[in-house]
Amino acid sequence: MAEAGDRTRRIGFIGLGVMGAPICGRLLDAGLPVTVSTRTRARAEPLLARGAVWADDPQEVARGSDVVFTMVGFPVEVRAVILGERGVLSGLDAGRILVDLSTSEPALAEEIAARAAERGVRALDAPVSGGDVGAREGRLSIMVGGDASALEEVRPILEHFGSTIVHQGPPGSGQHTKMVNQILIASNMVGVCEALLYGYRAGLDPERVLRSVSSGAAASWSLSNLAPRILRGDFEPGFLVEHFVKDMAIALSEADRLGLALPGLALARELYRAVAAQGHARRGTQALALALAELSRTGWPRAPAGE
Amino acid sequence: MAEAGDRTRRIGFIGLGVMGAPICGRLLDAGLPVTVSTRTRARAEPLLARGAVWADDPQEVARGSDVVFTMVGFPVEVRAVILGERGVLSGLDAGRILVDLSTSEPALAEEIAARAAERGVRALDAPVSGGDVGAREGRLSIMVGGDASALEEVRPILEHFGSTIVHQGPPGSGQHTKMVNQILIASNMVGVCEALLYGYRAGLDPERVLRSVSSGAAASWSLSNLAPRILRGDFEPGFLVEHFVKDMAIALSEADRLGLALPGLALARELYRAVAAQGHARRGTQALALALAELSRTGWPRAPAGE
Repeated sequence: MAEAGDRTRRIGFIGLGVMGAPICGRLLDAGLPVTVSTRTRARAEPLLARGAVWADDPQEVARGSDVVFTMVGFPVEVRAVILGERGVLSGLDAGRILVDLSTSEPALAEEIAARAAERGVRALDAPVSGGDVGAREGRLSIMVGGDASALEEVRPILEHFGSTIVHQGPPGSGQHTKMVNQILIASNMVGVCEALLYGYRAGLDPERVLRSVSSGAAASWSLSNLAPRILRGDFEPGFLVEHFVKDMAIALSEADRLGLALPGLALARELYRAVAAQGHARRGTQALALALAELSRTGWPRAPAGE
Repeated sequence: MAEAGDRTRRIGFIGLGVMGAPICGRLLDAGLPVTVSTRTRARAEPLLARGAVWADDPQEVARGSDVVFTMVGFPVEVRAVILGERGVLSGLDAGRILVDLSTSEPALAEEIAARAAERGVRALDAPVSGGDVGAREGRLSIMVGGDASALEEVRPILEHFGSTIVHQGPPGSGQHTKMVNQILIASNMVGVCEALLYGYRAGLDPERVLRSVSSGAAASWSLSNLAPRILRGDFEPGFLVEHFVKDMAIALSEADRLGLALPGLALARELYRAVAAQGHARRGTQALALALAELSRTGWPRAPAGE
């Protein structure tokens, strides 16, 4: 029944980046009718070839859709795409649902939900975790804030790309939960990169060290998934440094508002600022190892030559 | 055949603390003849009741043993128990093997191996990871430095309490690998505790948040095993704060010697110094949440009343 209701829904999808494109692809694979729009039309071509319909701007996407997803990089883009003059809300009829998958500011999520409610539209903040691989495999964690009944209505659609879908509370709660996620990753990445550098400097064999530490009390997703990439000099983005820096800035700003000192997160942000300053903003978050190597001039790891 | 050779070995075991006692218990369960000694005889009673034989000091343990294990808390104790006047080495005959399971200084491990070699004894540094639970279940990770042939001789014994046993290199390599392990844990614990405090202050439901973040890119052993303890106000030691502080001091001292800046580890050590200063030295490492709560006066989490 969910499946049947699901198929009658006309989907809109705005933002076809590293995460948006594979999520949208899974909705097309599921046979859903999807209208798309994104800043650079070339990015949409593979999806148009698979049956997606193009629209020129967010308003036009919204006019023909029952449920609109947005997935863009920065809060300023979220604001433009949803609340702007030709934004999603300007084209959505009452009764429709807006789902913002972007990682953005909790306060902006609250503002969007309130502005949507004025039009009879229900808006969910629903940032995701799990990377491009999780998106392609439909195994994302989706952290949802906003109207619980709206979540239940769109849940069959979310299940096409998410395996852990949890309602966290009122508008903004999805974003706050994503901040918890990013705070966890931030300090852990510092530990992973420092540990690899220590092992290197101590003259240990890195593969053997990973065998010893990967399955016990030091185990983590980042260690298992990103340490091997660092060891083979692969700094391609699974998750972009510049987006992570943005997420940490939001979390620190919220912590400031909440009167909360988070020294580990603050340090991680400063170190990632160095990663970006050294020219690695468009690499993956494992590029932190490059900046820490620079800090002590260890000479390892290095980014591949010619980049 | 390993099993048979195994059973003819007379085992000595010195240090029956949180980790030593369950490891020694597994050797007894395996039917091995074990002579024990520890600072507080009362700690040995349960093992004596299960067939262990008491000896009054490390030298006496060593005199009747083919393989001697030591597992004590601090490098100063390692030195006393192994190199002291009535230490293990004073009682070990040529051809015997010494296995130090303590987490201690790499340079001390090198010194012990050299002093042992003078007597024809082979010494291994073999610190472990996995906590008291891992010890009881025989699933420890054992990180071994020193003579590879000595490791192969004692491997059948180590397999009674360890499931990941990796030779890391020359004397001291086991300790260096353990430092890698602790560097990973240190920053990750900061992330886990800061993330929980953020979620609390943001008004999220902690159980629901853990459902969203525990299985994706933020996943870690510490998050899965220690966050639930923090949420239920359980600060009992799986791993003692005072031992962790000692481990981080060793790692920072080694990093200093190696010319390596490790800002995340340094921050974690300072924060754990605060944990100890606030009276939590004999609690578990998850007590970091108490010190971070104090930092911002969040009022949560709290240690149980009356402690």
